[in-house]
Amino acid sequence: MSIVVLGTVALDSVKTPFGKRKELLGGSAAHFSMAARLFVKVNLIAIVGSDFPKRHIGFLRKKGINLSSLTIDKGKPFRWEGEYKGDLNSALTLNTELGVLSVFKPQVSEEQRKIENLFLANVDPEIQEHLLKKMHSTKLVGLDSMNYWINTKRKGLIKLLRQIDIYVANDQEARDLSGQANLIKAAKRLCSFGPKMVLIKKGEHGVLFYSQSGLIFSLPAFPVEKVIDPTGAGDTFAGGFMGYLAKCKRINPLAIKKALAYGTVAASFNVEDFGLLRTSRLNSRDLERRMLKFKDCFLF
Amino acid sequence: MSIVVLGTVALDSVKTPFGKRKELLGGSAAHFSMAARLFVKVNLIAIVGSDFPKRHIGFLRKKGINLSSLTIDKGKPFRWEGEYKGDLNSALTLNTELGVLSVFKPQVSEEQRKIENLFLANVDPEIQEHLLKKMHSTKLVGLDSMNYWINTKRKGLIKLLRQIDIYVANDQEARDLSGQANLIKAAKRLCSFGPKMVLIKKGEHGVLFYSQSGLIFSLPAFPVEKVIDPTGAGDTFAGGFMGYLAKCKRINPLAIKKALAYGTVAASFNVEDFGLLRTSRLNSRDLERRMLKFKDCFLF
Repeated sequence: MSIVVLGTVALDSVKTPFGKRKELLGGSAAHFSMAARLFVKVNLIAIVGSDFPKRHIGFLRKKGINLSSLTIDKGKPFRWEGEYKGDLNSALTLNTELGVLSVFKPQVSEEQRKIENLFLANVDPEIQEHLLKKMHSTKLVGLDSMNYWINTKRKGLIKLLRQIDIYVANDQEARDLSGQANLIKAAKRLCSFGPKMVLIKKGEHGVLFYSQSGLIFSLPAFPVEKVIDPTGAGDTFAGGFMGYLAKCKRINPLAIKKALAYGTVAASFNVEDFGLLRTSRLNSRDLERRMLKFKDCFLF
Repeated sequence: MSIVVLGTVALDSVKTPFGKRKELLGGSAAHFSMAARLFVKVNLIAIVGSDFPKRHIGFLRKKGINLSSLTIDKGKPFRWEGEYKGDLNSALTLNTELGVLSVFKPQVSEEQRKIENLFLANVDPEIQEHLLKKMHSTKLVGLDSMNYWINTKRKGLIKLLRQIDIYVANDQEARDLSGQANLIKAAKRLCSFGPKMVLIKKGEHGVLFYSQSGLIFSLPAFPVEKVIDPTGAGDTFAGGFMGYLAKCKRINPLAIKKALAYGTVAASFNVEDFGLLRTSRLNSRDLERRMLKFKDCFLF
């Protein structure tokens, strides 16, 4: 089975109470891929500048990611600089350089257009829609966004929600887009915009799932004592979640709960080190081992 | 089986986005009792002023609560006035009148001193210790406190923690008393103060449990769409949790997880109406029915 992920491949500079790192390989599509690759073949669609470090591209390729639709463009790479303080629950963005991202028109091969699983990670909703239209026969489409697009391209984003299956948001985004403070009400309202399922990521507080058919699932986070850097945890979650579902023959309530658990466990590895340092070394055995520990935290 | 709960019986006035209520029956011991009574015989120890409405006392008695150690004193009742806004996650205290609470020396009958299960709900740590010393043969002692005592009687509270089994705190209290932002580190540190187990209530985000023996459990909250008034949810949680454990022959990991779930489910009823309005009508069937729904939210 395969999945296509559209998103960013970026250079991240980050400061947390545990240290500082400069120009790490990051971006939504990169983080997503590190988790999804443990379940299915990942086809990454993104754009990078021509001076983007070759070693990062080689690194992704070595991890088994199909990069045939990675656009390399003249221009500067997408750079993000952020800082986490206190309980590390929210990032303070210090600087964003869109670079090549501002001219991004996603490319996709004829082969990839036939892939049934698609995740539209956080980029401009217009770019997300552009790719969605090119796909031939999607069966499961997930979408992430962020406050910036909710504020500046709300209409386009809501139009896009009609065409997808699963909307993935963090708690603040869910509240902002829905106008509801209570997260269940927020999820309900977001479902009314179109997506069959809504998944609200609450960071260290776990995840809430809601479906048009009325299913409500709620899972805690995996308890991590040493959160080093949460950058990309949400994308890693989405990678584990979508990766597992892409592998399932039938998407039923049990499959969804398991997918939520795999996403949770994958994200718990992500926060234990800077950037992709931990998730890029992750294998299925690590994941299954922690899955057992995770189950032990709440199953009875 | 029986449990003794020490705490407050109060007149609560509350304002939430869903309305306003004046001088409702409230207080930590009253909320605790409404949940614990579904599992064991509850012996309530508190003080009320002589002008405390008789109907409230009659109401508690009708609910099966043993009030033989409820002190009725000259003087004004304990009054609390608070407001909740936005996502209703934290109360803004508008006014507190300690009234009789400032002269409270808990009474306890010879019969009650033999009871093995004790919950010291939120009052002055000196009052909590006073009662604890009077008890003959406790096997399971839980304790709750609040920021006011953490700030003003920190030393006394920490001394008390050495003598109890389970410390119950909300996330902010746990962070304040431990000096740790990460909740697992906070729980670990709190355990090092003495209690075998620490339970951190996170409101709509569920609960985290940690034991000296290294157990970590994490449960989500029951998803409630219409939170009317969260006053007393933490005490109701403690009532369900301690009530279930008091009934158990052996306290093992499974019993603890089930107790956490019962506490969670009991608290979910509490927030659905003002004061004790919902939990006072609650019966075991309601609780079991919602327990099944709750399990369905996360068990797989």
